[in-house]
Amino acid sequence: MRARHKPWADEYIQNHENIVVLNPVEQKGKWQQVFGNNNPIHLEIGTGKGQFVTGMATQFPKSNFVGMEVVKSIIVSAIEKVEQSGNSNIRLLNENANDLTEIFSENEVDTIYLNFSDPWPKNKHEKRRLTYASFLNQYRYILKDGGKVILKSDNKGLFEYSVVSFSKNDMVLDEVLLDLHAEGDPTNVLTEYEEKFSSQGQPIYRCKSHFKS
Amino acid sequence: MRARHKPWADEYIQNHENIVVLNPVEQKGKWQQVFGNNNPIHLEIGTGKGQFVTGMATQFPKSNFVGMEVVKSIIVSAIEKVEQSGNSNIRLLNENANDLTEIFSENEVDTIYLNFSDPWPKNKHEKRRLTYASFLNQYRYILKDGGKVILKSDNKGLFEYSVVSFSKNDMVLDEVLLDLHAEGDPTNVLTEYEEKFSSQGQPIYRCKSHFKS
Ligand SMILES: C[S@@+](CC[C@H](N)C(=O)[O-])C[C@H]1O[C@@H](n2cnc3c(N)ncnc32)[C@H](O)[C@@H]1O
Ligand SMILES: C[S@@+](CC[C@H](N)C(=O)[O-])C[C@H]1O[C@@H](n2cnc3c(N)ncnc32)[C@H](O)[C@@H]1O
Repeated sequence: MRARHKPWADEYIQNHENIVVLNPVEQKGKWQQVFGNNNPIHLEIGTGKGQFVTGMATQFPKSNFVGMEVVKSIIVSAIEKVEQSGNSNIRLLNENANDLTEIFSENEVDTIYLNFSDPWPKNKHEKRRLTYASFLNQYRYILKDGGKVILKSDNKGLFEYSVVSFSKNDMVLDEVLLDLHAEGDPTNVLTEYEEKFSSQGQPIYRCKSHFKS
Repeated sequence: MRARHKPWADEYIQNHENIVVLNPVEQKGKWQQVFGNNNPIHLEIGTGKGQFVTGMATQFPKSNFVGMEVVKSIIVSAIEKVEQSGNSNIRLLNENANDLTEIFSENEVDTIYLNFSDPWPKNKHEKRRLTYASFLNQYRYILKDGGKVILKSDNKGLFEYSVVSFSKNDMVLDEVLLDLHAEGDPTNVLTEYEEKFSSQGQPIYRCKSHFKS
């Protein structure tokens, strides 16, 4: 899933300024103005094809949703989905999570969702995991006091790693579920990966945590 | 597994003063004297029939092991096992974990093991779980700085609860494993319950944590 040069995707993205914020750094500290209301900002990192962010925006019309996806050819599918949904409370960013603190100011984000993030199983790739300490420090900066990080994954290794990483980086765990679908949370919105893995009988893990203030 | 009046068990216990410490409150602050050395004290709460504590004592002859088990008829089996093993670095206590801080003084214990603790799944029984806050406060008192609590369980609900409870009570998670036997830790000593559940194909969960100092 590496970004390749895809001119058609570039053009498609440029033509959807209503959905994709093309210069998000300029909106730092002004995201509620982008949405034209004071509702809380929820951020999904690694949005993929957009099923989660669209489903959440439909379920929670009084919240704003930002979906960040680094791969152009993938974000195109998310744009299509957002467009079809007709929701005005979603924006997409074709950006890398490395740049979060340039895009959002302190305390600007209410909740961060990490759904089926790439596991990067090799030790030497630990720094690329979205729950590595350097990412958590960015989350701490952009999240409001008590704001949550909510992780879903089918990947045992990433889940084990992430729970420990949260704990070692001043976060308190509010929830740990080892088989989310067995609980039957009626508000849970399935992602594309979640649909695929749970239909194969894999348990889905979920963890909610927040930074100590 | 409630304690019933079993005169034969009482008598058996009284006759094994070399293995069972009959008045443990008198040894508070003096456990290294009980063992006659300066080796660290490891405590298992809910020892059951003693397979774990015996196996650990054999594997780690330079550590001392205390097994606490509240049910008389169960501790009898542990006494037999300890006796057969011939290890001098084990003592058993026929006590309830509620009384930990009367039995051990501050910082006296190196590591606490909770193996397949009763899950008490109903919310109204939360206070009985050995990872409920009031127990954790006792563990904090008797553990040395950085001393670990190591939990193993087959029970999803208890494990989920315990990880969150540790986190909410000033503990840092050092390890979370959702399938211990898949990792193949060669130092792992199986308990009776662990043998039973893993042979049925159930994954075994393990968590290691310590209190922030
Ligand atoms: C395994 S997919 C999961 C997609 C979706 N969340 C789901 O659950 O179906 C992970 C996605 O995260 C994106 N991604 C990975 N690292 C990222 C980063 N640093 N910043 C933004 N997106 C990233 C990938 O391009 C990919 O689309
Ligand atoms: C489910 S069994 C597990 C036994 C053993 N640890 C194993 O893994 O095979 C739990 C044991 O903990 C003991 N126990 C439960 N609560 C206790 C308490 N508060 N203090 C001491 N022992 C307790 C029970 O009597 C029982 O023997």
